[in-house]
Amino acid sequence: MITMTDALAHVTLDQELSTPIYLQLAQQLESAIHAGRWRAEEALPSERALSDRLSISRVTARKALDVLLAQGLISRSHGSGTFITPRLEQPLSRLSSFSEMLRSKGFTPSSQWLSRELSEPTPEEVLRLGLSPRDHVARLKRLRRADGVVMAIEHSALPARFMPDPQAVGDSLYAWLDAENLSVVRALQHIQAVNASPEMAHLAGLEPGTAMLLMTRISYLADNTPIELTDTYCRNDYYDFVAELRR
Amino acid sequence: MITMTDALAHVTLDQELSTPIYLQLAQQLESAIHAGRWRAEEALPSERALSDRLSISRVTARKALDVLLAQGLISRSHGSGTFITPRLEQPLSRLSSFSEMLRSKGFTPSSQWLSRELSEPTPEEVLRLGLSPRDHVARLKRLRRADGVVMAIEHSALPARFMPDPQAVGDSLYAWLDAENLSVVRALQHIQAVNASPEMAHLAGLEPGTAMLLMTRISYLADNTPIELTDTYCRNDYYDFVAELRR
Repeated sequence: MITMTDALAHVTLDQELSTPIYLQLAQQLESAIHAGRWRAEEALPSERALSDRLSISRVTARKALDVLLAQGLISRSHGSGTFITPRLEQPLSRLSSFSEMLRSKGFTPSSQWLSRELSEPTPEEVLRLGLSPRDHVARLKRLRRADGVVMAIEHSALPARFMPDPQAVGDSLYAWLDAENLSVVRALQHIQAVNASPEMAHLAGLEPGTAMLLMTRISYLADNTPIELTDTYCRNDYYDFVAELRR
Repeated sequence: MITMTDALAHVTLDQELSTPIYLQLAQQLESAIHAGRWRAEEALPSERALSDRLSISRVTARKALDVLLAQGLISRSHGSGTFITPRLEQPLSRLSSFSEMLRSKGFTPSSQWLSRELSEPTPEEVLRLGLSPRDHVARLKRLRRADGVVMAIEHSALPARFMPDPQAVGDSLYAWLDAENLSVVRALQHIQAVNASPEMAHLAGLEPGTAMLLMTRISYLADNTPIELTDTYCRNDYYDFVAELRR
C-alpha cells in the first residue's frame, strides 16, 4: 500500500508560477485523490503535517484543504482528521459494477435487500420490459452502501419468467444473471433530478426534498430482450456522473 | 410536413395481442413523438378523434393519453388540446447544439443574455481553465428558451484572452468560437442534482427547492486547451439525458 508520505512525495510547489501555492497544492492533492493515492481508511495529512512536510504556512495548507472540502472531495470528522469522501465516479458510457468501483478506491461496498418479491407490473414496466399485463415481475429493492454509508436506493423489476424466485438472488444481481446465462450486454440510461420523498430521504439519511439523481436503466440481453428496469436514487454528494462528449 | 392524420396511419392495434389496446396505442404514439411525427405547434388528436379514427372507445383513448401525460411527453392546455412537451433528448456522448436539436422537433429556440462581462475568476475557474489568478474571464449568463418557455439557465466562463469583448458574442457561443478558430472538439460533462435557489427558481418559473439538473461542462480545443467552463441549470421536466452503456 502506498502511504500518505509517498503520496506527498509527488507534490511539487513552485513559487515562480503565477498560480498561488494553495491552488497548486489543491490541484495536486485532487489528482492524488483521483489516482487513488489515498485509501478510504487513511486520513489525509493534517494542516500541520502538510505545513511541516512541504515548508508552507498553515494558512496555505488550510486554504488548499478548503478547496477540496468545497468540491466535496474530502470531509472532516471531529477529532480524527480529514478523509476522502466516498465518491463514485460513474462513467456514462460503460456498465460498471458498483462493488468493483468502490473496492478499487478502498471502500467496502455492501448491499442490503429491503425486499425481493413477485408482483404485478406497472404500465411503465409492461411497456419497457415488453410484458403482457398478465405477466409478473420480480421486484427487488435494496440499499447500496460504502463503508456503511447509504449511497443509493435501487428498485429493480425483471420479467418473472427469467427470475421465478427473487429470493435466490445473492449479493450481486449481475452475478446472478451471468450465472443464469442472462448476461446484460448493453443498457439505456436516463438521468433525472428528483426531490427526495419522505421515504427516500429517511432511507438515505437526507432531509425530505433534497435533490437526488434518479438513474433509470433498461438493460438488454445479447438478443435485445429487455431484462431489467432499474431506478437508482443516488445521493448527489456521493455520485459523480461523468461523460466525455465529442463533437 | 407530415400531418396528424398521416401520423395516425402508422398506428395498428391488435385485439389478439395480450398487451391491452391502450398500452399498444400509448407505445405507438410515443414512438411517433420520438420520431418527430408531430411538430411542436400541432395539437395531438383529441380523445374523440382517436376514438373515431381508430375505432376504439374514448375511455381507451384517454387511458393512452394518460400514459403519455404521466411520462411527461405531452401536456394539456385548456381549450386548445394536447401538445407535445418541449423535451430535449440529450445524448450523453455527443456535443449537440441546443438550437439544432429544438429546431429538428419544430420548436423555436431562443436565447436571452442576462449578462456578458469581464470578471475575476473563481478558484474553481482558475483550476479548471488553467488560469493564473491575475487573468480575467469573460462571464456569460443566459436563458435558453423553446417556444418562449425557459428550459435552462446557463453560466459560462471563458479565458478573457480568447474573448476580450464578451458583448461581441451573438446568439450562439459555439458559432462565435468557430468563427474565431476556437472550435471545441471535446468536453467533459459532470451531472448533478441541485435544489433550485430562489434566484434560479424565479428565472426558470419553478418553486424554490425544486430539483434541477446541473450539467457542468469543460470544453477543450483540439490542442487540449480548456476554453469554456459552463454550468447549465436544466428544468428536469424538459430535459431527458440519455446514455447508452456497454459492458
